[in-house]
Amino acid sequence: MKRVYLFKEGSKEMGALLGNKGAQLCEMSRIGIPVPPGFVITTQACRDYFKVGKIDDELRREVKEALKDIERRTGKKFGGVKSPLLVSVRSGAPVSMPGMMDTILDLGLNDEIVEEMAKKDEWFAFDTYRRFLYMFGSIVLGVGEDKFDRILEKKKEEENVEMDQELSVDALKEVVNEYKKLYTPPPPEEQLFMAVEAVFKSWNNERAINYRRINNLPDDLGTGVVIETMVFGNMGDDSLSGVAFTRDPSTGEKKLYGEFIINGQGEDIVSGKRTPLPIEELEKIFPDIYKGLCEIAEKLERHYKDMQDMEFTVEKGKLYMLQTRTGKRTANASIKIAVDMVKEGIIRKEEAIKRVDANSLQQLLHKQIKGNHVKPIAKGLPASPGAATGKICFSADKASEIGDEERIILVREETTPDDIHGVVKAQGVLTARGGITSHAAVVSRGLGIPCVAGCESLKINEKEGFMEVNKLILREGYTITIDGTTGNVLLGEIELIDAKFTDELKILLEWADEFRKLKVYANADLPEDAEKAIYFGAEGIGLCRTEHMFLGRRLPIVRKMILEEDKREEALNELLEMQKEDFINLFKVMNGRPIIIRLLDAPLHEFLPRYEEMIEKKLKNGLTEEENKIFEKLNELREANPMLGFRGVRLAILQPEIYRMQARAIIEAAFSAIEDGYEVKPNIEIPVVSDANEISTVKKHIIEEIEKVFQEKGNKIDYKIGAMIELPRACLTADEIAEEVDFISFGTNDLTQTTFGYSRDDAGKEFLEEYVERKILPDDPFSIIDERGVGELMKIAVKKAREIKGNKIEIGICGEHAGEPKSIKFCNKIGMDNVSCSPYRVAIARLASAQAVLEN
Amino acid sequence: MKRVYLFKEGSKEMGALLGNKGAQLCEMSRIGIPVPPGFVITTQACRDYFKVGKIDDELRREVKEALKDIERRTGKKFGGVKSPLLVSVRSGAPVSMPGMMDTILDLGLNDEIVEEMAKKDEWFAFDTYRRFLYMFGSIVLGVGEDKFDRILEKKKEEENVEMDQELSVDALKEVVNEYKKLYTPPPPEEQLFMAVEAVFKSWNNERAINYRRINNLPDDLGTGVVIETMVFGNMGDDSLSGVAFTRDPSTGEKKLYGEFIINGQGEDIVSGKRTPLPIEELEKIFPDIYKGLCEIAEKLERHYKDMQDMEFTVEKGKLYMLQTRTGKRTANASIKIAVDMVKEGIIRKEEAIKRVDANSLQQLLHKQIKGNHVKPIAKGLPASPGAATGKICFSADKASEIGDEERIILVREETTPDDIHGVVKAQGVLTARGGITSHAAVVSRGLGIPCVAGCESLKINEKEGFMEVNKLILREGYTITIDGTTGNVLLGEIELIDAKFTDELKILLEWADEFRKLKVYANADLPEDAEKAIYFGAEGIGLCRTEHMFLGRRLPIVRKMILEEDKREEALNELLEMQKEDFINLFKVMNGRPIIIRLLDAPLHEFLPRYEEMIEKKLKNGLTEEENKIFEKLNELREANPMLGFRGVRLAILQPEIYRMQARAIIEAAFSAIEDGYEVKPNIEIPVVSDANEISTVKKHIIEEIEKVFQEKGNKIDYKIGAMIELPRACLTADEIAEEVDFISFGTNDLTQTTFGYSRDDAGKEFLEEYVERKILPDDPFSIIDERGVGELMKIAVKKAREIKGNKIEIGICGEHAGEPKSIKFCNKIGMDNVSCSPYRVAIARLASAQAVLEN
Repeated sequence: MKRVYLFKEGSKEMGALLGNKGAQLCEMSRIGIPVPPGFVITTQACRDYFKVGKIDDELRREVKEALKDIERRTGKKFGGVKSPLLVSVRSGAPVSMPGMMDTILDLGLNDEIVEEMAKKDEWFAFDTYRRFLYMFGSIVLGVGEDKFDRILEKKKEEENVEMDQELSVDALKEVVNEYKKLYTPPPPEEQLFMAVEAVFKSWNNERAINYRRINNLPDDLGTGVVIETMVFGNMGDDSLSGVAFTRDPSTGEKKLYGEFIINGQGEDIVSGKRTPLPIEELEKIFPDIYKGLCEIAEKLERHYKDMQDMEFTVEKGKLYMLQTRTGKRTANASIKIAVDMVKEGIIRKEEAIKRVDANSLQQLLHKQIKGNHVKPIAKGLPASPGAATGKICFSADKASEIGDEERIILVREETTPDDIHGVVKAQGVLTARGGITSHAAVVSRGLGIPCVAGCESLKINEKEGFMEVNKLILREGYTITIDGTTGNVLLGEIELIDAKFTDELKILLEWADEFRKLKVYANADLPEDAEKAIYFGAEGIGLCRTEHMFLGRRLPIVRKMILEEDKREEALNELLEMQKEDFINLFKVMNGRPIIIRLLDAPLHEFLPRYEEMIEKKLKNGLTEEENKIFEKLNELREANPMLGFRGVRLAILQPEIYRMQARAIIEAAFSAIEDGYEVKPNIEIPVVSDANEISTVKKHIIEEIEKVFQEKGNKIDYKIGAMIELPRACLTADEIAEEVDFISFGTNDLTQTTFGYSRDDAGKEFLEEYVERKILPDDPFSIIDERGVGELMKIAVKKAREIKGNKIEIGICGEHAGEPKSIKFCNKIGMDNVSCSPYRVAIARLASAQAVLEN
Repeated sequence: MKRVYLFKEGSKEMGALLGNKGAQLCEMSRIGIPVPPGFVITTQACRDYFKVGKIDDELRREVKEALKDIERRTGKKFGGVKSPLLVSVRSGAPVSMPGMMDTILDLGLNDEIVEEMAKKDEWFAFDTYRRFLYMFGSIVLGVGEDKFDRILEKKKEEENVEMDQELSVDALKEVVNEYKKLYTPPPPEEQLFMAVEAVFKSWNNERAINYRRINNLPDDLGTGVVIETMVFGNMGDDSLSGVAFTRDPSTGEKKLYGEFIINGQGEDIVSGKRTPLPIEELEKIFPDIYKGLCEIAEKLERHYKDMQDMEFTVEKGKLYMLQTRTGKRTANASIKIAVDMVKEGIIRKEEAIKRVDANSLQQLLHKQIKGNHVKPIAKGLPASPGAATGKICFSADKASEIGDEERIILVREETTPDDIHGVVKAQGVLTARGGITSHAAVVSRGLGIPCVAGCESLKINEKEGFMEVNKLILREGYTITIDGTTGNVLLGEIELIDAKFTDELKILLEWADEFRKLKVYANADLPEDAEKAIYFGAEGIGLCRTEHMFLGRRLPIVRKMILEEDKREEALNELLEMQKEDFINLFKVMNGRPIIIRLLDAPLHEFLPRYEEMIEKKLKNGLTEEENKIFEKLNELREANPMLGFRGVRLAILQPEIYRMQARAIIEAAFSAIEDGYEVKPNIEIPVVSDANEISTVKKHIIEEIEKVFQEKGNKIDYKIGAMIELPRACLTADEIAEEVDFISFGTNDLTQTTFGYSRDDAGKEFLEEYVERKILPDDPFSIIDERGVGELMKIAVKKAREIKGNKIEIGICGEHAGEPKSIKFCNKIGMDNVSCSPYRVAIARLASAQAVLEN
């Protein structure tokens, strides 16, 4: 098998064999871009090398033959004294691993050749030689860089200059002599094969392995090796080296963006040894070269149909391209470039949609810290993106009280459902414990407010009203800024940049809407959330949790309902009126868009104080009669595994009056909104279902109550009843469930818990991070749907439900997976109808669901 | 469609259409048994009646026509004065519902006919008339029975007689007159149709509905109606009525078993109004009739190939059979009859195996209370069968201490894994809280000791050493008896009967072994359990839990391991030696039979004191430094949902040293047993697996440790590694798991918890009982495998595992379902290889798995 390809023999599609850099050099060469002659050793040769442990004779033969081809084209000779051919030996993997592996330049020199070269240009000859000796010695032979650096620095001191290129010829000669005392370079041919071997080996250096681990890249690809005729940016003042993007990678603006240095080699820019000039200067200094570069940029973009990141060198006025690749860019630039390229006729809409990383939209839709000038005082987990500034507040009650007047950051050991009334009033949440799947994190993401979780260096003393972090004490009321995108906690108020929903993003999302099949709903409990959802383009509410309607100032009423049998009805009536108001406002905001309202899901003990608190109180100060009653009830209701407990439909079957009250509140609210001129589409969802009989049992109560309302009103309205599918058994019996309902919605958070047998509250801190770290699981299944397990159950459920009702049942997903692109694509693939995510992820879902269609 | 069948038109296979009683009368008539002429109205007619609400004309026509047929055969005329035909109208459903529905006898009488009859036999005429008036009045017209009874009793007082048949003719006449004052009977034809209608209606009387609910029978079958010529056992001293079994239903002995009354009708026996004579007397009084009955019994048995329960009447010396049906019998009789009938050539082995209810074996294998003479002082849930007597003991520690010398009953609020050392020493366990799936119940069933759980009337005051139940106070040390089969708690020592493993049962099980495909293993942790398992016929141990090896006197060492990082290795070494001893003993008992040893499954916090205890102590008396350390660790390890927590393989991946120690203990023990001349088959099982990568990760450690032992011993032994499949995801990825293991075993207890999202600790007391009661679920899924959900996952897993490894992977089930016949049949159906149940259920499993093969 052929393992060496001349540039003319390869093309851009051969990245897996030639490495990306090599393949693009071949491509450029093929389409007539000026590229110095060269060839590529394949990744197969690299893999062979790792098997055998040496460069075999056949490969040597092939390389030497290719070298002859270069010699023919350039009229130079590798190792020849008269017209010496110098080459670079560069790594290039199939997937870009920038800077991770080795590169050696200026190969093919020896004393004799340098002397001959010096006859033409002494400075250039010794500058090149000292560069070669340095790179070859440090990279191939492992001589410490510091030894070379010390020699060079000493010389610069002696000559009192700052930059390498200011050294005199004599100084360079002395440097070369000193360098040669460190080691004696081998003859040119040996240099070449030793360099190739070094590049092969660099595939497995520590930094490359780490890079692949972090970026989830396979370890068995191997690198290609590019061997190319050297062109010299350091051949005087008509020579230069530079890098340039075809568009601005940070804004996406269409203009050449980059920098260059005169009389220097490319690595001088990369290493930061010299300060380069902005590319605009090139136009002034060498307008023709600039024009040539612009033409090449245009040609490359049209050819590759994407923004390019190029390296180039000018040797004595002649422009050579040394590399081109797709350029990295910010999310904003990515969108602008994609949309602009459609307008310019370079790509089609479909391509534009596919090209933007849906996940990257997230950074656009939250406030961000301007610059990164302030050092954080602590770092936690980036639990909900965006930045926020506010006064420290340790109590949810207080936050709820003052949150309307002041901006506050709620700081808690960790949050519980009890704190929700405080969370909704806070600008952001900071917790000392809990992971990115903790309560605080989940709720914050749902509300779209920033959250830094598990900030373990934080010691909170709630009672005395201060927190301590690394010997710094901050009293309640002190202003801090948190950045949920990075996990940073900063002192004081920091300037923030607003969320950007640019014109281009709007256009892109409108295009996405043309293609996608999934409807995109949002999870929203409050009218404010619903407004946000509509702003971001949600077509409805896919999950309105009603738990918060039992919390905050309503908690005493809820407790009355739980604790006092005889006041139960009274309490339910009070709650009815309140929930009705909640629903009226939601209906009005959503005006005509569907709302899926999930009936009470939480177990009743979640509305009582925590056991730990009660027992502490009891044993310290004793309990009042009232508290004692609560404690007794708590003991009765407390569960070994609340996740698998007496909740949702289970509770409703034994105590149907809560669901009756909620059903009545929904329908009465619907009537009320209609009276005010709004359109309503109420959908009632039953949670925690594991058997169709549960639905039929509870449905009877719901329908009976609704029929009562219809009678009282003397009128009817349309409504739908559905089930949340969040338990394996519900998936496995989805055919029977489908018989009973108009819609189903996967609750994949809970489904993941039961399918894996993972408690979300515990698993993260205990073993899940470690599992992902060690690749036992490819991803955190709470972030990305586990297709082999949870996804398999979803497939089974969709198939069974469709067998019964075809397209007459609407199938959706709510919860965090619904805002994650990979999971959305999975949902599209298995034939679902909608995804419902947090309002801030609606844009992501719109884009990702269009991508899902286009990638199929 | 024909809705009336003459006896000659039906056969025994037509039970669904004719009801069981009707079909068997047809059959007897067909094969030449003397049966009075008659016909049957179909169950379809009954269902039609419930649709229309009346007897339609077509049915009337059919009935009248059939009646004419009887008249032709008997030469009598219904409603005729000269030779009147009297009939009985009896209910008979497709499935026997004894005594639940109505029967009316002696229909077709009026004053004129009775007068005419009286000319032949005055006493008989009026005895029959009063009987008719009573039954028709009370059943068809709803006249209160008490009214009739009062009249009859008054007359008996007046004549100073005790029995109805001692009344004089005059008295009977007066009774008839009084009865007729209560209502006037309609003419014969009306009687007939009113009676038919009454029988139809009785299908839906309250008692029948309840019976069907309790016995899980469908409500829509309807009943057939049998109309048959009356024959009279009350026609003088050469007439009699009787019931007889063809064999003794309580022992199975082959001899006629039954009773009869002279000059009386069948209902006099059933109602207990007269004391019947044992059937042996018949031989003495009417040897010919007895002989005839024996011949018929023999004929019926040979024809039906099963023991029969017969009703017969002798009218003036002539024997008529009125009913035959398969006779109910005790478990013991059932086995003996089945085995005997094989020997007699009546049935084949296969039939014998199919015929014994596998579940019924349970009552044979535990001690039972003799008789039922003592009134219980309390009643709890029958949590583990069998009876036991012992002294009350409130503490597990004390039980463990004195349990070897004294018989004790461990009485606890509820038990925890901490109590296991006490439970194993107790004769039985009694708890005040917890259901039939509570810890105490599960452990007791595993150990085969009786348990009464959730005995809520019990108030235990452990500190002061007494318990109170309904104002009765029992001090620790007082002797009680518990009956885990009924849930009864009795005062003092009660005589118990030993478990019976009769010769016939042994034979039956040997036959079963010839047919079954499933291997039957037992769950056994201790050598004593293993011995029992072998006695009952287990072929190996399918689940040896190692949790108990960390408890009892070893707990301090385990805590050292958990709490003191620096003493961890030391503690593990101590445990190694102890566990090694455990395993050596097990290997010796099982000598050559496979043992599946499950590595540690429980989360570490289960080995620390309960949180509630600690906090109480902390806040009351403060904690010692030692205790404080434990409390801190407990807070670190405590979980929101321990069922879904940091256990089994998860723990082992992060802390592999425990599994390493256990693997070493197993293999060292195996070597040691081999040295002593025993054969060993160790199988190491990894619990709580949700992904194949977990196994491969932990397997590396286990194999590495085992290889070390091999090196130290200079020898190798065979062993297998397997996985417990107890999470939905493990089922869904069983193909990948199969790649990694030699065997898998379903842990269906936990699989049921996660598939349904039910916490076993909570669900029972909260809603599960109610679910079964209301038929939301057909059965408790923790008792019988839920085939639609959990079973579906098992099917998927078996299919996927077999796709990869065919029959090279052994697939089993351990846990309680493995000893439940219906579940065992399911396991056989989906192609599993073994079931592993508690030793006491091994016999059940042997029989049920043979039945599974034969029923297929």
